[in-house]
Amino acid sequence: MNKPSDTFPEYRALDEKSVAGFVSQIQTVRETLGGSPETWGAREVGDGNLNLVFIVTGTKGAVVVKQALPYVRCVGEAWALPLERAYFENEALTEEAKFVPHLLPQRYHYDSKLAAIVMEFLSPHIILRKGFIQGIRYPRLAADIAEFMAQTLFKTSDLYLGAATKKQRMAIFCRNTELCKITEELVFTDPYRIAKLNRWTTPQLDDIAEKFRQDGPLKTAAQRLKLKFLTTAEALIHGDLHSGSIMATPEDTRVIDPEFAFYGPMGFDSGAVIGNLLLAFFSQEGHESSPGQRKEYRAWLLQTIEETWNRFEQRFLELWQENASGDAYHASLFADPVSSEALATEQRNYLRRLFHDSVGFAGVKMIRRILGLAHVEDLEAIKDPDLRARCERKALRLGRLLVIESESFSTITEVTAAARQEYSHHES
Amino acid sequence: MNKPSDTFPEYRALDEKSVAGFVSQIQTVRETLGGSPETWGAREVGDGNLNLVFIVTGTKGAVVVKQALPYVRCVGEAWALPLERAYFENEALTEEAKFVPHLLPQRYHYDSKLAAIVMEFLSPHIILRKGFIQGIRYPRLAADIAEFMAQTLFKTSDLYLGAATKKQRMAIFCRNTELCKITEELVFTDPYRIAKLNRWTTPQLDDIAEKFRQDGPLKTAAQRLKLKFLTTAEALIHGDLHSGSIMATPEDTRVIDPEFAFYGPMGFDSGAVIGNLLLAFFSQEGHESSPGQRKEYRAWLLQTIEETWNRFEQRFLELWQENASGDAYHASLFADPVSSEALATEQRNYLRRLFHDSVGFAGVKMIRRILGLAHVEDLEAIKDPDLRARCERKALRLGRLLVIESESFSTITEVTAAARQEYSHHES
Repeated sequence: MNKPSDTFPEYRALDEKSVAGFVSQIQTVRETLGGSPETWGAREVGDGNLNLVFIVTGTKGAVVVKQALPYVRCVGEAWALPLERAYFENEALTEEAKFVPHLLPQRYHYDSKLAAIVMEFLSPHIILRKGFIQGIRYPRLAADIAEFMAQTLFKTSDLYLGAATKKQRMAIFCRNTELCKITEELVFTDPYRIAKLNRWTTPQLDDIAEKFRQDGPLKTAAQRLKLKFLTTAEALIHGDLHSGSIMATPEDTRVIDPEFAFYGPMGFDSGAVIGNLLLAFFSQEGHESSPGQRKEYRAWLLQTIEETWNRFEQRFLELWQENASGDAYHASLFADPVSSEALATEQRNYLRRLFHDSVGFAGVKMIRRILGLAHVEDLEAIKDPDLRARCERKALRLGRLLVIESESFSTITEVTAAARQEYSHHES
Repeated sequence: MNKPSDTFPEYRALDEKSVAGFVSQIQTVRETLGGSPETWGAREVGDGNLNLVFIVTGTKGAVVVKQALPYVRCVGEAWALPLERAYFENEALTEEAKFVPHLLPQRYHYDSKLAAIVMEFLSPHIILRKGFIQGIRYPRLAADIAEFMAQTLFKTSDLYLGAATKKQRMAIFCRNTELCKITEELVFTDPYRIAKLNRWTTPQLDDIAEKFRQDGPLKTAAQRLKLKFLTTAEALIHGDLHSGSIMATPEDTRVIDPEFAFYGPMGFDSGAVIGNLLLAFFSQEGHESSPGQRKEYRAWLLQTIEETWNRFEQRFLELWQENASGDAYHASLFADPVSSEALATEQRNYLRRLFHDSVGFAGVKMIRRILGLAHVEDLEAIKDPDLRARCERKALRLGRLLVIESESFSTITEVTAAARQEYSHHES
């Protein structure tokens, strides 16, 4: 593995004109696109917060070029951000590809000079979040995301790896501090204080935003989760596993964009999935063509939350039972039947602690999308501010409950029941 | 800060003849020793498990040279160990010296070619463990060790540092894997399985050693602590803070030997202190010139445990209240009186969690010194094997209780009460 250079002296931002020339140097890309580079088309389609994204189209096919910009795209050049994040994204994709290649876009090239990754153009996949807004069902989603999380989290953890191997990888990602800092501030801190970049549906949510800023128990609980984010190096986590980082069709699921990856708490990934599915749930009311039209879809979303967690838990335990090769809970200690029984109990306790972490992280992830800088299209797409605020208020109330009472939830069905209750509570 | 070289091409082990020539190249050492190098005397005094230690004496004074060997001294050349540990020790000493220089030996020179540190000859200090065997009281000990732990743990944590600074330092110590591996195996794993290097007072303790190897709940609890050791990067910990790593007089205390340092769980240091004081407590019976002769000294040891924890807790909280400059529990969120009150509650909860960690780590530290490879002089010095085994069995029983029931202890006085009870239980 190469170390990233500290500077990118040959960096230049690509544009729709130059991008074809860049990818034409890559043999596999030429084969994928077909025809001569002069005939290729290119358009910039990035709608995320940070990067340039191009689709380059030839006679036979298309590829995607994702290039880091030296600043935060959604804020502007004033907020500098290191190009090196493309290196970390590529490292994380390399690691994930060892375990779940079928759940990732195929990569053709990583360019360390331009901080760019050239990869598969996924079609007819759309960003999962957009699918949720349209009310599309994804029958494979729960199983695929559960598999992605179980494989990537278990197999980069001390349950699977020797300590030296893990620490060596951890040291690399210790340097992804700028991206971690975005999470530390935007997820765990800014929504709970006056911050220049915060916004919310105003004046409808002014009262609850102010209440949250004065809510001592909520703030200490959110900061306790932040401490966990800062200190707990359990596994190489994706770090941004929301429904905007997943591209899907009803038949296929791919996880993209792991530039926030580092060795952190596993529950941050599972919490991101749960929290964003809950945001999708609460936003449905704003997407109904007639009252109640999305009722069954709402039920499907909650069912997907339950299925995702339950399958994740099951797969994680299976992987552990089949591959207990790590230094933690060393297999040599648990060979006899009595000890093996004790380990099984401990494994259930491990998953219970992970569940509590996930619930708490789900809560802060929901709150930051409504009171902080970066919002989600699920809610932003609701044009009527009163309607949007009604959805958002419910999500905020549940989010607060998940953060403060995370340990009082024993099962995922208690979480979905709380969501249902919060939804109805305001309906009546 | 320089990166250590991966190899030490110019390394040679020093001996009593060559060490004077080596230190004569260092200006401050020449001044400290006085006279000409030909008149200096040198002797090797290392009685630890890993390194060479020389005292070089001149007409005016003396210095200590600690040099890493490329293998584990107490095992032999078959167990290779990287010389780089001298680099990590020097890095840790540099960090500690920012906060508690008065509790460390003064350093004159770090030699990256010879993996050697030249430092103050402490006199009339003796290794604290030897003082405990002699029944010496150290009125300053509790306050000094509490201060050492509070300063070094708090000020290298996310409560004090910004995340990027902390991660940068953490990445360096991620490479101290070989020393961490010693702890991972000898403390958390080997005592609970058949391992070639294990030994214990036999046949007296054969039954309890076997029982521990079959004790499912004990083994899962010990491995849960190991997982914490592997995943929790709370602060730069000393990593080996037992009574053999402290040199003391009744008036002065110095902490030495942080070569096991890395970013780990704070409770591992406080647990090491508590566990080793408890071993001293249980060993006293073997050092009595007449029955009951050490009764008051035993009481002093328990009182020192209580005072160390209570002062540590108090100092840690004071430091936090005065220097809340870290990214965790960001001060900007807790300025108003209500939030400040919530933070105060959270700080008490934080210390309670740290206390539970400490109790658990104290327990595994006790057990490994009786059933594992490296024993302690407190117990080894007891010549009568029946008497020694009686002391050791009590320590093992308490150790097991601390590991399994760590969270059932609310205060340090409950721990010392359990020690007293375990001691008397077998007396009657």
